Amino acid sequence: MSTFVEKLQAAAQQNNSLLCIGLDPDPRLMPIADVAEFNQAIVEATSDLVCAYKPNLGFYESLGPAGTEALEQTLKAIPSWIPVIGDSKRGDIGNTATAYAKAMFDVWGFDCVTVNPFGGQDSLEPFLNYQDKGVLVWCRSSNPGARELQDLIATPPLGGGDSRPFYEWVAISAAKWNTNGNVGLVVGATYPDELRTIRELCPDMPILIPGIGAQEGSLEKSTMAGIDAHG
Amino acid sequence: MSTFVEKLQAAAQQNNSLLCIGLDPDPRLMPIADVAEFNQAIVEATSDLVCAYKPNLGFYESLGPAGTEALEQTLKAIPSWIPVIGDSKRGDIGNTATAYAKAMFDVWGFDCVTVNPFGGQDSLEPFLNYQDKGVLVWCRSSNPGARELQDLIATPPLGGGDSRPFYEWVAISAAKWNTNGNVGLVVGATYPDELRTIRELCPDMPILIPGIGAQEGSLEKSTMAGIDAHG
Repeated sequence: MSTFVEKLQAAAQQNNSLLCIGLDPDPRLMPIADVAEFNQAIVEATSDLVCAYKPNLGFYESLGPAGTEALEQTLKAIPSWIPVIGDSKRGDIGNTATAYAKAMFDVWGFDCVTVNPFGGQDSLEPFLNYQDKGVLVWCRSSNPGARELQDLIATPPLGGGDSRPFYEWVAISAAKWNTNGNVGLVVGATYPDELRTIRELCPDMPILIPGIGAQEGSLEKSTMAGIDAHG
Repeated sequence: MSTFVEKLQAAAQQNNSLLCIGLDPDPRLMPIADVAEFNQAIVEATSDLVCAYKPNLGFYESLGPAGTEALEQTLKAIPSWIPVIGDSKRGDIGNTATAYAKAMFDVWGFDCVTVNPFGGQDSLEPFLNYQDKGVLVWCRSSNPGARELQDLIATPPLGGGDSRPFYEWVAISAAKWNTNGNVGLVVGATYPDELRTIRELCPDMPILIPGIGAQEGSLEKSTMAGIDAHG
């Protein structure tokens, strides 16, 4: 079985694309009522243009049991060679983290998930231990309030480290957690300078860059700042 | 309709209890196979002993559709005067946060949720705007790896602030976010000294203190450090 990174690279090569399309159905903004049908139409129209799809679990959960059903139908509509990222930003500790990893990888069958780093390494190990799956660590968000906590200037409590924004420590930790080669980052497109620094700290890790479009991030600036060491 | 805090205080007074029981069913550890039946037995045996119940969504999600069904049945079994905290540590931005708030409060009907502070104030506003509902901000976790990021010593990027552990900044932010009087904190019982400092920063906010039991936190130390300004 190929790993997430291999599957991502193969799809990117096949479609000559670095584009990940989010499947975040908001019924108030959709031209048709049926979520699964809406997503299927998107997938049919774009499956030769993307390197991955990313359903955002919040939108499905907000629709109750119908949302669960729509997500199941959506996953069936995606060609099996295109990797699917379950965007859920899960983060919790101990056996709860194990349960979330099981839900995302075994129950839903995602190739990759987004996670929240707040709990530290042991909180993410249940995800990282799925060596064939991808784990994208939420590092710097694209919203206006991101600065409030993520930009605090931080140093290690016992000394012996630089003084850096908190989100850079997240990137440094993520690189340490990458012993299985299955870790990447999520960095919002609205802050290309921060993205450039993070890319320098993690030259080879995949970076998912949301925020182009509705959030007004720049595609050109983000691509230039985010492209990996191999171009 | 009473607010979460009023409902919590009424239940605490009725049962003379500050105990919140987690409903975190792990089939490998359960004496019977049926999750809903197991939870119903716990609720029947303890509904005169608690001030709240707290189902942890990870465990239900890990069971797929059967888990959704079991959570529905569990919620029906809890007397309506006892508040229910949906422990899901959700955290995301923009319309995703709105979707998660809708899922937790409107679809599931929880009286209160746990959230992750990483995205900052605007990422939590969709939850905070439910003025009758409670929002418990994950501030300091009880796992060994908590120190990795939560204990970094941090200062505001523009100066003008103290040098404090990151988790204290989370507590300070949570107090700022509490304009509707519906914010509380989650602080692990395994670190009573940290808990005492956080209680000093937020003298009146409810603090949920997980980690007694399996995680070997001390009930006595935690109660003494965590009790609010009114005892």
